Amino acid sequence: MDFIRPDTAAVFSGSPLDRADEKRADADWIRGKIREKTTRFIAYCGLRPLMRRDPPYAIAYLSFGDIAADIEGGAVWVFLGLKKGRAYFAISLPAADPEHPPLHKAGEFQDVRAIAIQAAGLGKGTEAAMIGQGKSLLDWNTRRKFCSVCGAECEMARAGYLRRCTNGTCAAEHFPRTDPVVIMLALHEGRCLIGRQPKFIEDVYSALAGFMEPGESIEEAVRRELLEEAGIPVGRVSYVESQPWPFPSSLMIGCIAEALSDKIKLDENELEHAFWVEKAAIRDVLGGDRERHGFKLPPKMAIANRLLTAWAFSD
Amino acid sequence: MDFIRPDTAAVFSGSPLDRADEKRADADWIRGKIREKTTRFIAYCGLRPLMRRDPPYAIAYLSFGDIAADIEGGAVWVFLGLKKGRAYFAISLPAADPEHPPLHKAGEFQDVRAIAIQAAGLGKGTEAAMIGQGKSLLDWNTRRKFCSVCGAECEMARAGYLRRCTNGTCAAEHFPRTDPVVIMLALHEGRCLIGRQPKFIEDVYSALAGFMEPGESIEEAVRRELLEEAGIPVGRVSYVESQPWPFPSSLMIGCIAEALSDKIKLDENELEHAFWVEKAAIRDVLGGDRERHGFKLPPKMAIANRLLTAWAFSD
Repeated sequence: MDFIRPDTAAVFSGSPLDRADEKRADADWIRGKIREKTTRFIAYCGLRPLMRRDPPYAIAYLSFGDIAADIEGGAVWVFLGLKKGRAYFAISLPAADPEHPPLHKAGEFQDVRAIAIQAAGLGKGTEAAMIGQGKSLLDWNTRRKFCSVCGAECEMARAGYLRRCTNGTCAAEHFPRTDPVVIMLALHEGRCLIGRQPKFIEDVYSALAGFMEPGESIEEAVRRELLEEAGIPVGRVSYVESQPWPFPSSLMIGCIAEALSDKIKLDENELEHAFWVEKAAIRDVLGGDRERHGFKLPPKMAIANRLLTAWAFSD
Repeated sequence: MDFIRPDTAAVFSGSPLDRADEKRADADWIRGKIREKTTRFIAYCGLRPLMRRDPPYAIAYLSFGDIAADIEGGAVWVFLGLKKGRAYFAISLPAADPEHPPLHKAGEFQDVRAIAIQAAGLGKGTEAAMIGQGKSLLDWNTRRKFCSVCGAECEMARAGYLRRCTNGTCAAEHFPRTDPVVIMLALHEGRCLIGRQPKFIEDVYSALAGFMEPGESIEEAVRRELLEEAGIPVGRVSYVESQPWPFPSSLMIGCIAEALSDKIKLDENELEHAFWVEKAAIRDVLGGDRERHGFKLPPKMAIANRLLTAWAFSD
């Protein structure tokens, strides 16, 4: 199967940070870095990061002085990593106080999808990767206040990469989730399968996708999802590339799948419509010409767009 | 990079079951299936499945009559799937009562690793896949008694694939975890890198591996782990295959990585020793000749064995 692999990093990957895993357990080192003058904080409110007004789509970093009171007050924070000796953290602030002078001056809290759409358009993925890492980890820490084993409170450890049950007889350790999702382009005699979920924006179609389950390989999950959702039996499955997806914390695993039949049988709980489409039509729509074909495709930030582009422009 | 991909399914994959996702939410259908005469139950005690004494390494299926009292008593169970109309479930029984007649007659509770080692040796992966699916899902349900968001109790839904918070104002939904792990063979000028963790059995070496984190792609995780653990910078990363790994619920993502240097700098918290080794030595050790080289490799059930085999027997 001819297929040109994308040669740029997907949005939300390509972080410039060294995660410095070996430092996370060193509470003194972390405490020191938090208070260091050069350290930068990405502030979030409702998981929306604080972005500058000018230039657009640049993170409005805060320094320790700006958020010292929030840290004292127990705000959730995580260590993101190091770049040239400088430490980066993410911190979750309470509902935005418009009078909070550093925030007001620095910028505004923005939607991560909107930022990523713009970053992909500009070919600027690296800040989106840091924003995504922070969003996933803050979300996980916030939603993991209690131990799922015994119900007691958990406390944060390892700079946000571990939550430990405070009940001494339980003491369960909980690690951040990363949820693998398969997303695949089924191919059959020069055409590919696209479908739309009822929740999609009007006229938008995409590659089929689904969460992986315990007890299956990537290839099995691809086969199961295509059979479940569209009734399509699949032969060979090939991995193409992957992308971290911070909604809230998925790993998109992009594949192509050789369809053994083009007879679609929809699972109408999952998909509203699906159809086979030629390369030329995908190229038209990716190029902006939606009128002629009556469907839209996902934006460049999405791995589905990258799979479709790679396929439609290969021989 | 020449590389022969394995052409058999990895142990713990290749399940013969249709997971029948669309049936899980139909509580009446599930309740009916549980009580059906032909339905089979894999019983676990302490996450060890009940296996027959003869033939060895075959599941000792129970029927509803055998475990009706346990289901009445609130034992944790999950739906595994369908095969030719017959339903399969997994059920967790309390500490084995040696007087429990159906269990005593049927077989004994065995260790999943031991079963898988044997299954790989016999080329019988399909029952191991069902055993693994059941183990991962029972473990997850058992360790997810309480809601991590608010601390209230959760109740099982969707036949074991969803746990819902019973606190009406929270009502958080929790889905099973699948933890992606990268495991990679670093290659450099005809040699591959193997290392050992302190916890490994004496003399055993394997491919390096590590849990993925939120905010990174598969390729980035491979690069990070090799740099962190062995100081090896990496160029191209190629995906080979994946394997579900029910300890407790990982997805092993097997890759090969082009090392840009062979200069090892160990992270001694992670690895005790690592070294570069030629194909011929790997072939010897895989063939059973450990004496000459002084190291052992993981058993056939492990994806590391499959990566090493594929590499060592390619040109």
